[in-house]
Amino acid sequence: MKLIKTKGQIRKIIRAERQKLKKVGLVPTMGYLHEGHLSLIRKASRENDCVVVSIFVNPTQFGEGEDYDTYPRDLTRDMEQCEKAGADIVFAPEVDEMYAAGSAAFVDMGGGLTDTLCGASRPGHFRGVMTVVTKLFNIVRPDRAYFGQKDAQQVAVIKRMARDLDFDIQIVEAPIVREKDGLAMSSRNTYLLPEERQAALVISRTLFWARQAIMDGEKNAVLIKEKITEKISSEQLACIDYAEVVDANTLKPLKEVRGSVLMAVAVKIGRTRLIDNIKLEV
Amino acid sequence: MKLIKTKGQIRKIIRAERQKLKKVGLVPTMGYLHEGHLSLIRKASRENDCVVVSIFVNPTQFGEGEDYDTYPRDLTRDMEQCEKAGADIVFAPEVDEMYAAGSAAFVDMGGGLTDTLCGASRPGHFRGVMTVVTKLFNIVRPDRAYFGQKDAQQVAVIKRMARDLDFDIQIVEAPIVREKDGLAMSSRNTYLLPEERQAALVISRTLFWARQAIMDGEKNAVLIKEKITEKISSEQLACIDYAEVVDANTLKPLKEVRGSVLMAVAVKIGRTRLIDNIKLEV
Repeated sequence: MKLIKTKGQIRKIIRAERQKLKKVGLVPTMGYLHEGHLSLIRKASRENDCVVVSIFVNPTQFGEGEDYDTYPRDLTRDMEQCEKAGADIVFAPEVDEMYAAGSAAFVDMGGGLTDTLCGASRPGHFRGVMTVVTKLFNIVRPDRAYFGQKDAQQVAVIKRMARDLDFDIQIVEAPIVREKDGLAMSSRNTYLLPEERQAALVISRTLFWARQAIMDGEKNAVLIKEKITEKISSEQLACIDYAEVVDANTLKPLKEVRGSVLMAVAVKIGRTRLIDNIKLEV
Repeated sequence: MKLIKTKGQIRKIIRAERQKLKKVGLVPTMGYLHEGHLSLIRKASRENDCVVVSIFVNPTQFGEGEDYDTYPRDLTRDMEQCEKAGADIVFAPEVDEMYAAGSAAFVDMGGGLTDTLCGASRPGHFRGVMTVVTKLFNIVRPDRAYFGQKDAQQVAVIKRMARDLDFDIQIVEAPIVREKDGLAMSSRNTYLLPEERQAALVISRTLFWARQAIMDGEKNAVLIKEKITEKISSEQLACIDYAEVVDANTLKPLKEVRGSVLMAVAVKIGRTRLIDNIKLEV
């Protein structure tokens, strides 16, 4: 496995791979890898000849007062994990390699996909995500790119972006990986104090309850949303950012549980903002 | 020469060319080709193995009340011209092939490059340009893309966009081609009534005067701007949209004539908006 830090170097390698008609898979990450990321890398490794994992804590997708500075980083550990999971190349550029001085161009999206859920509480977040993903797509030119369903809105936005801007790249999504007790894996879980870690279980427990309610026949999406809010709010350390039951493709709120249903929540546990979701076909 | 109307088809052909390690040049146009376009196609033909000319009157770069509906179109004539100039493929998609229903992603730019000159009088214009050029870049994946210096701001914006978003594409610019009497070639010249055609000469005549003044040693950029404005305004049929003396890279107004100097004007002659410019290294 190779560690590459410049665009020029990775372009050269990928070009050579491409000339051998090899398929290239990209797994974009912010590092501090957990089992969720590793499941993406393993999947990419099964489906491609050459797997690039990008590790880049992207400043432009963090808002004022968010955790850009404190976001956990450990390249040495990440490298070991990538190697084991089957990555061929780790692309870990510095910020000034990634963004030239005076960078001004960006990718953004009108319509409803980005101004709801995380987009509503993190203005500019998806602009930052789309811009850096566009850059990574242009640098690596993968055949396939892998994203975790945990960031459900991100998957919907990137899929739409890839279609709208004609990226010839297959967007592959993979399921959320959870701790044994149900907590969705996240690099940000490392922020949680023991008491908060325990309190955070209210999120997955509530989503599991909601899934069961739907499987038991509940059709009233508004009621489910209310119940989710109520159950999560009962945990003293939890403060809901949003809790929504939406169409998984349009992200528009549902009145009735039907089609591709996404139950998505963002919850602050202490100072840590966690997201989680469950997607169901009804 | 082939005429291609769908993204799928052109991708297939380009992929095959690429596997033969051929260099691909793209000349993006809105059709109704004149000698300016043809000079780009010929240049592309000399420098690449496979030349794609795109012909697409892009609705998203026209503002409310602009000439999208009346913009001249003649695919049959354009095809003949492309063939003669050495194009291999003409890519001429319909609007609904180019933009999927519900298209929402776009490319835009902060900073000063797009809010001055044509960007100031045509809000949203460069967003439309950048978005469609990104799409064409992603569809054709050229090694080089060719743009005319007549749209000087467009060249500056596309160069910056290509750099900022890491398109691995060389942006090649080529000089303005003029009629014998000096008028810069433009598909919009076809709108001009005979009297207006004559009046339009004030634009190039004035720019030539300004170039001479600089070559004669004039250093005061503000004075040159004033003189340009005065001279063009002396023509009764001319109404100035802007007349600026700016740095050719940053497009910021200059006080002193120094470095890469761009003298750029937009002038309405009757109902037709014409642009022209001269770039000088001082």
